[in-house]
Amino acid sequence: MDESQDLAARINDWSEHSRFNAWLGLEAGVATPGDITLHLRWREEFGQYRGFLHAGIIAALIDNACGYAAASIVGSVLTSQFAVRCLRPAVAEVFVVHARVVKPGRQQIFTAAELTGLDMDPSKPFAVGDAMLVPVAAVPSGE
Amino acid sequence: MDESQDLAARINDWSEHSRFNAWLGLEAGVATPGDITLHLRWREEFGQYRGFLHAGIIAALIDNACGYAAASIVGSVLTSQFAVRCLRPAVAEVFVVHARVVKPGRQQIFTAAELTGLDMDPSKPFAVGDAMLVPVAAVPSGE
Amino acid sequence: MDESQDLAARINDWSEHSRFNAWLGLEAGVATPGDITLHLRWREEFGQYRGFLHAGIIAALIDNACGYAAASIVGSVLTSQFAVRCLRPAVAEVFVVHARVVKPGRQQIFTAAELTGLDMDPSKPFAVGDAMLVPVAAVPSGE
Amino acid sequence: MDESQDLAARINDWSEHSRFNAWLGLEAGVATPGDITLHLRWREEFGQYRGFLHAGIIAALIDNACGYAAASIVGSVLTSQFAVRCLRPAVAEVFVVHARVVKPGRQQIFTAAELTGLDMDPSKPFAVGDAMLVPVAAVPSGE
Repeated sequence: MDESQDLAARINDWSEHSRFNAWLGLEAGVATPGDITLHLRWREEFGQYRGFLHAGIIAALIDNACGYAAASIVGSVLTSQFAVRCLRPAVAEVFVVHARVVKPGRQQIFTAAELTGLDMDPSKPFAVGDAMLVPVAAVPSGE
Repeated sequence: MDESQDLAARINDWSEHSRFNAWLGLEAGVATPGDITLHLRWREEFGQYRGFLHAGIIAALIDNACGYAAASIVGSVLTSQFAVRCLRPAVAEVFVVHARVVKPGRQQIFTAAELTGLDMDPSKPFAVGDAMLVPVAAVPSGE
Repeated sequence: MDESQDLAARINDWSEHSRFNAWLGLEAGVATPGDITLHLRWREEFGQYRGFLHAGIIAALIDNACGYAAASIVGSVLTSQFAVRCLRPAVAEVFVVHARVVKPGRQQIFTAAELTGLDMDPSKPFAVGDAMLVPVAAVPSGE
Repeated sequence: MDESQDLAARINDWSEHSRFNAWLGLEAGVATPGDITLHLRWREEFGQYRGFLHAGIIAALIDNACGYAAASIVGSVLTSQFAVRCLRPAVAEVFVVHARVVKPGRQQIFTAAELTGLDMDPSKPFAVGDAMLVPVAAVPSGE
């Protein structure tokens, strides 16, 4: 098993330990430390009122991918803040979210991600976003 | 049925027409045009790996509440961008998200929201966020 | 000299030690730990192409006010990320930016601010924003 | 004069018509429609209290570059919202901010930018940011 497969396997394991991610059915794609991909197969219960992918699911995908990209470098993290820009109605059979670490740090990890559809034009993402995460080890108890 | 109950009923109807919101089980609380509240009863499938409310669900709550606050004034909207700040681990039996319109406009509606727990100290929200929405009528076809 | 005047005097001292803030001519208004106000008298060189207050100056006011609100509690800080929503064209003789700490922390301080004009309707701010800051003591050397 | 020089000349003209940008001394670099670069030569009055480039100036550079990138495609714009992530202390003799249009639209233009130093490692920007702009023609009078 090469390094990418090993990391992908760990990411799938992380997803199984988050009840919401297990419900989503996230699957790791190509993954190297600091640069990871997740796939999500469309289900009708992911829809908003017009049948597009719900912005909350978009946010969950971006938050998860950014968190996993950070965790692949620094271990357990918590999301501190994130932002999502919805560029186009999100419709696909399989969604692909790709995240990368923009700047790792001991206190804060800056990440960015974009959401596209499998085999779709990567230059026209449905949404883009960014997240800041803090290593759990850096969070004092009680904070 | 007074005006607030009428709007709350319409919000519950909107939630039923979004498959993801129906899965969440959102329930409208106090609601006046431009200022609305949603309740979400905790279920284990909303959790992240440590058992706190998943940041994706936090985002979905903030996005939905902001969207409904905007829609209560201008009709159908789509989320354009939103941001979430996660201030504290989110643990409660019933979560309460309160959103208000900060600035309505013909092209863009600015909104803000905070997430707390029922009967918890409102000055210590779990998360705060903001969203910009566009009226659907303002979105040219094909954009 | 009461506590508020004392903090205001310290804020004015901070502004004099930042070359850009000295150029702006920031003046502290009412200030208590974690909740501070700055005033800026309009000058033509603050304008954008239509003569409104430049979004860059708006950002500088929000960033400064948020930074001072954080510093009034935890000492020296650096801005980590901030966001600005421009709600209305900003035109006033004296601008007032009010910032407060939303959540202090050992690693990150969450703050929020709004920009209005002196003696103007406070419910119609020109802009609102938020900033995250890190205590300088928490920044490892070399990061 | 080729197309890039022509656009650069127009950008310099825009900067001269904004009093704040004229004070900054912005100079257009390489520019094609939707993808533009600005240069800013360091002056001491741009500094914060430790002598780094002030976050307000960073914001102004990102806002201006994003605005010019949008204007190069759709004409006059106003900034609607923007966000800045400060990754590293910003120290350079000449700062370079590069912005591109991520998604043009009739109602909203999504843009992104990064700030580096001339002849510095482009993979280690001082700051990154994003901005949403609205075409002035789309802003109803009185809004």
